[in-house]
Amino acid sequence: MSPLTNRQVVLASRPSGIPQAEHFSIVETQVAELRERELLVRNEFLSVEPAMRGWVSAVANYSTPVGIGEVMRAFSAGTVVASRHPGYREGDAVMGMLGWQDYVVTDGSAITRKVRERDLPLSLSLGVLGLNGVTAYFGLLELGLPRAGDTVVVSTAAGAVGSAVGQIAKISGCRTVGIAGGKVKCDLAREAFGYDAAIDYKAGDIAGALREACPRGVDVYFDNTAGSISDAVLPQLALNARVVICGTASVPSWDPPPMGPRVERHLLVKRARMAGLIVFDYAHRYEEAIARLAAWVREGRLAYREDIVDGIERAPGAIAELYRGENLGKKLIRLTP
Amino acid sequence: MSPLTNRQVVLASRPSGIPQAEHFSIVETQVAELRERELLVRNEFLSVEPAMRGWVSAVANYSTPVGIGEVMRAFSAGTVVASRHPGYREGDAVMGMLGWQDYVVTDGSAITRKVRERDLPLSLSLGVLGLNGVTAYFGLLELGLPRAGDTVVVSTAAGAVGSAVGQIAKISGCRTVGIAGGKVKCDLAREAFGYDAAIDYKAGDIAGALREACPRGVDVYFDNTAGSISDAVLPQLALNARVVICGTASVPSWDPPPMGPRVERHLLVKRARMAGLIVFDYAHRYEEAIARLAAWVREGRLAYREDIVDGIERAPGAIAELYRGENLGKKLIRLTP
Repeated sequence: MSPLTNRQVVLASRPSGIPQAEHFSIVETQVAELRERELLVRNEFLSVEPAMRGWVSAVANYSTPVGIGEVMRAFSAGTVVASRHPGYREGDAVMGMLGWQDYVVTDGSAITRKVRERDLPLSLSLGVLGLNGVTAYFGLLELGLPRAGDTVVVSTAAGAVGSAVGQIAKISGCRTVGIAGGKVKCDLAREAFGYDAAIDYKAGDIAGALREACPRGVDVYFDNTAGSISDAVLPQLALNARVVICGTASVPSWDPPPMGPRVERHLLVKRARMAGLIVFDYAHRYEEAIARLAAWVREGRLAYREDIVDGIERAPGAIAELYRGENLGKKLIRLTP
Repeated sequence: MSPLTNRQVVLASRPSGIPQAEHFSIVETQVAELRERELLVRNEFLSVEPAMRGWVSAVANYSTPVGIGEVMRAFSAGTVVASRHPGYREGDAVMGMLGWQDYVVTDGSAITRKVRERDLPLSLSLGVLGLNGVTAYFGLLELGLPRAGDTVVVSTAAGAVGSAVGQIAKISGCRTVGIAGGKVKCDLAREAFGYDAAIDYKAGDIAGALREACPRGVDVYFDNTAGSISDAVLPQLALNARVVICGTASVPSWDPPPMGPRVERHLLVKRARMAGLIVFDYAHRYEEAIARLAAWVREGRLAYREDIVDGIERAPGAIAELYRGENLGKKLIRLTP
């Protein structure tokens, strides 16, 4: 077999804020021969995540930053095309930290899981049945502790994580209020993802809209944004509220840390709590989550949207597009062999 | 019996920040005749609490503000001097929301508990065996969740709550680091309350001193101050840290809410949580806490300090003195009949 050409998106320079296309370059390499206990995966979908901003940041974070010249760290999903590993065979569908590239040779350590939901599209393994769905599941259920009758407010309500949070909250018997940017996303939140109310944060007066939508206060706030949206929600927490810190999309940079209204008094007076979520801490329970999420998808209770673009050359600019809020649904790059 | 004269400290005007002596006045009234199911308490000690700032504030809080002309809400401890209530007899020691006054007639609803620890000074029922001790007990054990080996950092380490937090953390097998203002309080924290290290926040570079005192990070931060002390602690949280929001002594006013560095990223990256404590939520468990605290006092494992001044005329200025940090130990007003 003649060596395969592998296109790889590598980090070219370190961004200080949101990574732009020019911070990456695309290089071509040859795929190495498989050694014993290795397998070769051909990626079919590359994921684009808000968390990627943190993965390339030099500021202290939950993971080592991607090095300059290294393949961009990314979840990808694909098919095993050759295997000398006893745990994998040709044709297996897998997802994992396979990077922004066409091919990856691994000893298995880069693979998060075999994709067993073969009746559903492979792309879902990077979205509603992937880290996004699992993040929504554990963040809401383990840290948000929703009770039937609670009012659950979700920022980035129409996004890949937020749309799942809202629907799992509905399945849990809660009232859901979504916050999103613009009429299109608000309509999507209500119509596709079943939110009882949607608030357009670009339309001004978030606090007034929240008071109207949450007359008994906010029991659970699932926060993907921080910033001015959170500043409007925190004063409206109900007694014993739970705030899940899942992402900080609206804060362009944490170096130096930005200022905002202090939260201590709200937490004290409302006996509320804020807790940070890193989904990787729940890796030992992914299969539990994915089995339930897949069942809800099959039953038509968990809707999703995907925003799929073709070609690896779309990857470098994709994080910035995500932060500009241009996508409707989980952003993915589809590779054609 | 000729009617008794009752001196009462009433709220004269509403402060916007920390209440000063001029916000109160002292009036004399006559004690009413007891009706059936009422009892008369003669107060011996009046408590002074940081929380009083909130109790007189018009800003949304966890309790209705004290009205203008009303007796200042306060915990007091005293002795039943007459009773037509079947649950109380003359000579019973009681503590409760008895107000800043010499005498109080109540149907029992103002009484938090009978003081059963008669082998110990009655004043302790307002401090280490009162709300301060109980706040330390539930705040640390229920929200801080200390584990043996944890590093526990306490702000206002030499104060009535903080000194008990540090000692309960030591009893729980933790390493304790106290933060206090000035050498005298830092020495007290180490020598009287057993802190393994004490940091003088007035000496500058809190962050550097914390790094030295907490090389493996801060597992539990018991926060009585908010403000710049918290800003130094938050970036040094350990993984899975717990922050207990008990008070916000360093913030002069919450109207409008002051700005500070945003906390979301610290909570996210460290999977940490912040939770607010209102000790009144644990009222049904006070006896559990007080029984353990009293046992530790008797065993010499829980030290305390009191700062007792004589005369009700000292009450109006006492909250401001507390916020100036002038006291060493639980601040109390002793009344002489």
